[in-house]
Amino acid sequence: MDSNLIRSYLVGLQKNIMNTISSVDGGTPFVSDAWEKAPNEPLQGNGVTQILEDGVVFERAGCGFSHVKGKQLPPSATQHRPELNGSPFEAMGVSLVFHPRNPYVPTVHMNVRMIAATPSNGQTVTWFGGGLDLTPYYGFREDAVHFHKTCRDALIPYGESLYPRFKNWCDDYFCLKHRGEQRGIGGIFFDDFCELGQEKSFDMLKSVGNSLIPAYIPLVEKRKDTPYTERQRAHQLYRRGRYVEFNLVWDRGTHFGLQSGGRTESILLSMPPLVSWSYDHKTEKNSPEDELLSKFIVIQEWL
Amino acid sequence: MDSNLIRSYLVGLQKNIMNTISSVDGGTPFVSDAWEKAPNEPLQGNGVTQILEDGVVFERAGCGFSHVKGKQLPPSATQHRPELNGSPFEAMGVSLVFHPRNPYVPTVHMNVRMIAATPSNGQTVTWFGGGLDLTPYYGFREDAVHFHKTCRDALIPYGESLYPRFKNWCDDYFCLKHRGEQRGIGGIFFDDFCELGQEKSFDMLKSVGNSLIPAYIPLVEKRKDTPYTERQRAHQLYRRGRYVEFNLVWDRGTHFGLQSGGRTESILLSMPPLVSWSYDHKTEKNSPEDELLSKFIVIQEWL
Repeated sequence: MDSNLIRSYLVGLQKNIMNTISSVDGGTPFVSDAWEKAPNEPLQGNGVTQILEDGVVFERAGCGFSHVKGKQLPPSATQHRPELNGSPFEAMGVSLVFHPRNPYVPTVHMNVRMIAATPSNGQTVTWFGGGLDLTPYYGFREDAVHFHKTCRDALIPYGESLYPRFKNWCDDYFCLKHRGEQRGIGGIFFDDFCELGQEKSFDMLKSVGNSLIPAYIPLVEKRKDTPYTERQRAHQLYRRGRYVEFNLVWDRGTHFGLQSGGRTESILLSMPPLVSWSYDHKTEKNSPEDELLSKFIVIQEWL
Repeated sequence: MDSNLIRSYLVGLQKNIMNTISSVDGGTPFVSDAWEKAPNEPLQGNGVTQILEDGVVFERAGCGFSHVKGKQLPPSATQHRPELNGSPFEAMGVSLVFHPRNPYVPTVHMNVRMIAATPSNGQTVTWFGGGLDLTPYYGFREDAVHFHKTCRDALIPYGESLYPRFKNWCDDYFCLKHRGEQRGIGGIFFDDFCELGQEKSFDMLKSVGNSLIPAYIPLVEKRKDTPYTERQRAHQLYRRGRYVEFNLVWDRGTHFGLQSGGRTESILLSMPPLVSWSYDHKTEKNSPEDELLSKFIVIQEWL
């Protein structure tokens, strides 16, 4: 499969998403930071980090495209293809996390990526991974349903079983085991995917990537002008602490990336702009903050 | 060696330190949270978490004592005694991190701990670990020298070579490899220590524990009323992000504790109360903020 086609899709997706975010933010421009790995680094490649900080709607919205080539596929890159460990490989993807200012607007995360490895005596194998998931600070059932429905609609053309499979995978992955809490209300997550063949699997990846805007932007538009006070802001900052804990302690991409010499600023695009921690934070019983924990960020069928 | 003696020292140390912190904070009380492991948990034991939040001088000052017993020593507990893996063990310690409000006052961390393991056909082996280290937001050479001198003075009675060894160990340990930065100006760090025999090694541990107040409190008193503006506060919040990154990504105790079912709120006492992240944060050339990075948090001999 021609990797230029994939690159061209991903670059366009990043551009489209960031233009949309900028427009929702009232035209706030984003900063575009193109980077290239130095010739002596273990991975070769380049990328573009795009970020909007201190906007009207978004306090921090980062979206990165990267495209790297390496001489030896690390074992962590595929759980299901040990025979490809150590093969030359190519990886590219778009990854984003948007942290809104208003506590009634959820945080969203999306990643779409492909990896292609070429064993010494074989043909290139290409596979895909990614997904999108939502982390609200206040729960709204209709928002959660809309997000999951958009995820399901993106997958339906590729098989009825994909949404339930990828939804469960997402619930399993975005779990803060040290808190016994989910990160948010989930969404879809998949990895090592090429079971539809390369072309159709790539079509599915595109469908997932294209679903970010329709899944998320309507929720932003609906909630961004909701009045809030210090109480909601404090709750948001405390919940953002959980986001940091998940990403730095449990997220394989983040943790492995930082420990193995990845590009730190690109990896940590996901960090919230302002975060608080306090001892044994408690929410008032039956408050909306408590409902988030008891009714929303618990695994359930949304559709 | 009688572990009650060690317990009694550590409990007294925690009390003494938290009373001092409360007094420096103008009498702000700290909250004392005693906990006990449920009988069905893999580790048995108890502890007391003491925390002062939202004080005048300290924005968050947490100090924990814990004392646990387990049936099988995990391999991560000792790098140098593989023959003890799987033996019944006892571990206790005091651990603290103090986050001041004024950006001119440094953050301090201290840990003193003992582990004792009893192999099935042998005598109990006891060893000690810990240290203290300083993380300033603005550099003052005389403060760094005072801190290191107090650490050296605590160790001198136990051998001339200990300070240089433990100082280097500290520099090696408190390194954010993903940033190519040290966490702070260091201090001392040691582990697996019993080379002076159990009694004298415990005496050394006490000397280290007792050095926290003379090493740190004079710096707090000297800097706590320094006027500051939003600029210094913003710099402090950005540097606190590095503290979070170190603790969640690199600190073995934190990372292992969270992944293996430790008591989350006690482990995360070290988190700063308020933290910010922004993309590719830059400091103004030759500013005091820049000097922190170029002249202070780089490995050097302070004495």
